[in-house]
Amino acid sequence: MGVIVQKYGGTSVGSVERIQAVAERVRAYRDQGHQVLVVVSAMSGETNRLETLGRSMSGRPPAREMDVLLASGEQVTIALLSMALQELGVEARSYLGDQVCIRTDGNFGRARIEEIDTAPLRKDLERDVTPVIAGFQGVDSQGNLNTLGRGGSDTTAVAIAAALGVDECQICTDVDGVYTADPRIVDDARRLDLITFEEMLELASLGSKVLHPRSVEFAGKYRVPLRVMSSFEEGPGTLITVEKMNMEQPIVSGIAYARDEAKITMSGVPDIPGIASKILGPVGRAPIEVDMIVQNTGADGLTDFTFTVKRGDYERALELLTEVQTSIGARELSGDNRIAKVSVVGVGMRSHAGVATRMFDALAAENINILMISTSEIKISVVVAERYLELAVRCIHSEFDLGEAAVSEESVA
Amino acid sequence: MGVIVQKYGGTSVGSVERIQAVAERVRAYRDQGHQVLVVVSAMSGETNRLETLGRSMSGRPPAREMDVLLASGEQVTIALLSMALQELGVEARSYLGDQVCIRTDGNFGRARIEEIDTAPLRKDLERDVTPVIAGFQGVDSQGNLNTLGRGGSDTTAVAIAAALGVDECQICTDVDGVYTADPRIVDDARRLDLITFEEMLELASLGSKVLHPRSVEFAGKYRVPLRVMSSFEEGPGTLITVEKMNMEQPIVSGIAYARDEAKITMSGVPDIPGIASKILGPVGRAPIEVDMIVQNTGADGLTDFTFTVKRGDYERALELLTEVQTSIGARELSGDNRIAKVSVVGVGMRSHAGVATRMFDALAAENINILMISTSEIKISVVVAERYLELAVRCIHSEFDLGEAAVSEESVA
Repeated sequence: MGVIVQKYGGTSVGSVERIQAVAERVRAYRDQGHQVLVVVSAMSGETNRLETLGRSMSGRPPAREMDVLLASGEQVTIALLSMALQELGVEARSYLGDQVCIRTDGNFGRARIEEIDTAPLRKDLERDVTPVIAGFQGVDSQGNLNTLGRGGSDTTAVAIAAALGVDECQICTDVDGVYTADPRIVDDARRLDLITFEEMLELASLGSKVLHPRSVEFAGKYRVPLRVMSSFEEGPGTLITVEKMNMEQPIVSGIAYARDEAKITMSGVPDIPGIASKILGPVGRAPIEVDMIVQNTGADGLTDFTFTVKRGDYERALELLTEVQTSIGARELSGDNRIAKVSVVGVGMRSHAGVATRMFDALAAENINILMISTSEIKISVVVAERYLELAVRCIHSEFDLGEAAVSEESVA
Repeated sequence: MGVIVQKYGGTSVGSVERIQAVAERVRAYRDQGHQVLVVVSAMSGETNRLETLGRSMSGRPPAREMDVLLASGEQVTIALLSMALQELGVEARSYLGDQVCIRTDGNFGRARIEEIDTAPLRKDLERDVTPVIAGFQGVDSQGNLNTLGRGGSDTTAVAIAAALGVDECQICTDVDGVYTADPRIVDDARRLDLITFEEMLELASLGSKVLHPRSVEFAGKYRVPLRVMSSFEEGPGTLITVEKMNMEQPIVSGIAYARDEAKITMSGVPDIPGIASKILGPVGRAPIEVDMIVQNTGADGLTDFTFTVKRGDYERALELLTEVQTSIGARELSGDNRIAKVSVVGVGMRSHAGVATRMFDALAAENINILMISTSEIKISVVVAERYLELAVRCIHSEFDLGEAAVSEESVA
């Protein structure tokens, strides 16, 4: 028994029936003795519909008005879910961003939460009322509506959980937890019972779509126990926590991948100070997001410089680099837009040497050529030709014994 | 040149193209040197869509949440219109009910406006910004969203016009003004250039759908010049004002009708004090709205008692009266649900005797039997069989020379 924040995403509240199912679920938690606060997104498809309306008004709709437009989506959901709850005999009360004073910083479309007034929520909990709060929105010090951008409702849920100091923040979604790898690629991918914030953050950043990195970061910072679980099925989901309680820490927790990558290589670049900024400067100002960057120094005072971008930015980046090539006198410019990134993540690898070697060996055994390598303290990423993506994920998953069969001994949270 | 509030209803903002047309129109007024504040309704169909969603959640959706749900409709429109205006180079700024502090009384679904903070609007006008304000909504002293009920956006527009003391409040709609009679019934019905608040109030109450009585009453109380005009075509519309400037005041300004009426007669009722309340009490508590009430005293200590209700309430009212009949010992209960009400309205009839006679004679000349009569200072209403409705409207319209041909001499505002 405790106080729980539950967040339901667009798919989970995508129809009248699904909203009713969410209401039933919230009631079931209450019947178990929990106090529940609910955060909801707009019904699935609604945000896209509104965005299309906005874009039909203007090629570049003013950001302030786009936020007013988009924020109406969550307003519909909180009203409908509150009605559904009351229909089940659960006293519920909807809250818009400004009604719980979710104070944001005024950056339209990608605002950050600065403060939350928890007084009305605490009062509701005392009176056994279930608050239903609009995710994704807040209001700045000028009284303008702000939206929080991608993953915004997750962030709202975590922020409320942090502000109230609740026992758990549950992100209820269309998957039943975080997996060792994408189950669509790896047959025996296994749901993790536990994962650390750091690992989750790397997985999220590396392309696992379960949680937005921002909400994970937020939860980690304020130590809010975060659980990813299914909106539709029973099950414990995956608890994201500060420290793993398992005795036997696995070396690798999961494997993430990102398709839709592209790489660009500038070869025969004069190896002089400031050259990296000459190459990446124009790309960054475009603005095009650069992910991995690798530079190898050659013997002849020349160097090769490679970086990756999203596939959609590839053509534009190549154009910019063509101009740069001439100005710095580089020998050759080449690129490849059919690549993918595969990463292994695990806090355990901090204390275990040889993770990289095992990963590279596994890939070599399948004749998969590694095009680029990048590492951090708890992650190793490699770039491979896109056609090898699935094979790479599977052989690494198997190399580190992440599958169903391998974990009978793992303790459960 | 002056400051104008323009209100656009659901049909006028019913699509992307129509919102763009409204933006063009607002810009044209600005180009003429006016300062414009815009009040908008939800896109046509949207309020119904939301209401259906709400009713699919609950047979009796909680009023607070229904208001949260419905208010999202106007939020979409203010954002889209602000975008469209900015696309045309007009600096615009959207306002939700709480952002202009439209303070309401907390009656969900039918709130009344208590106060408006005009400071942000005045600041916008000083900076040549066009405010785009959500109609139909406000916020109560507890911070709850309230909606204003039917005709709510008209009321918002008038309230803002009154609070700012603007030069004119224009209700832009799908008709080009107030007519002497419904043009679908009377071929030569004529648009009125001027009409008084009192007349408009009677016309509105009597079934003319152009304006909601509440907004007319509000405008009259605060002496806000109100103009009904087309959203789509050029034209002066009809100005609703305190006093007519015409030298030659017409006796009758217009003819209104209400179809869908029903009447109930209790005959042979003991003519004793308190009998009217015994008959109408149960109906009023149902609650069923009673319109006209007529009582004729007979010679034998018995009386006949007739009243009208909306046709949709007829069956229920008859049921209630059956019980009453037994308890008071009335001789007979009868009813007719195929009747209609036709009314002539005009401030001129105050000083002219014989308006009633002319009206009754005109009806008699067409062999139309009058079933009930009710009068006020500036209106005479008769009930006739529904099948005579159109004929009655036409013959009265002709009797009082209200048609196009008859008014060449009338001065124009």
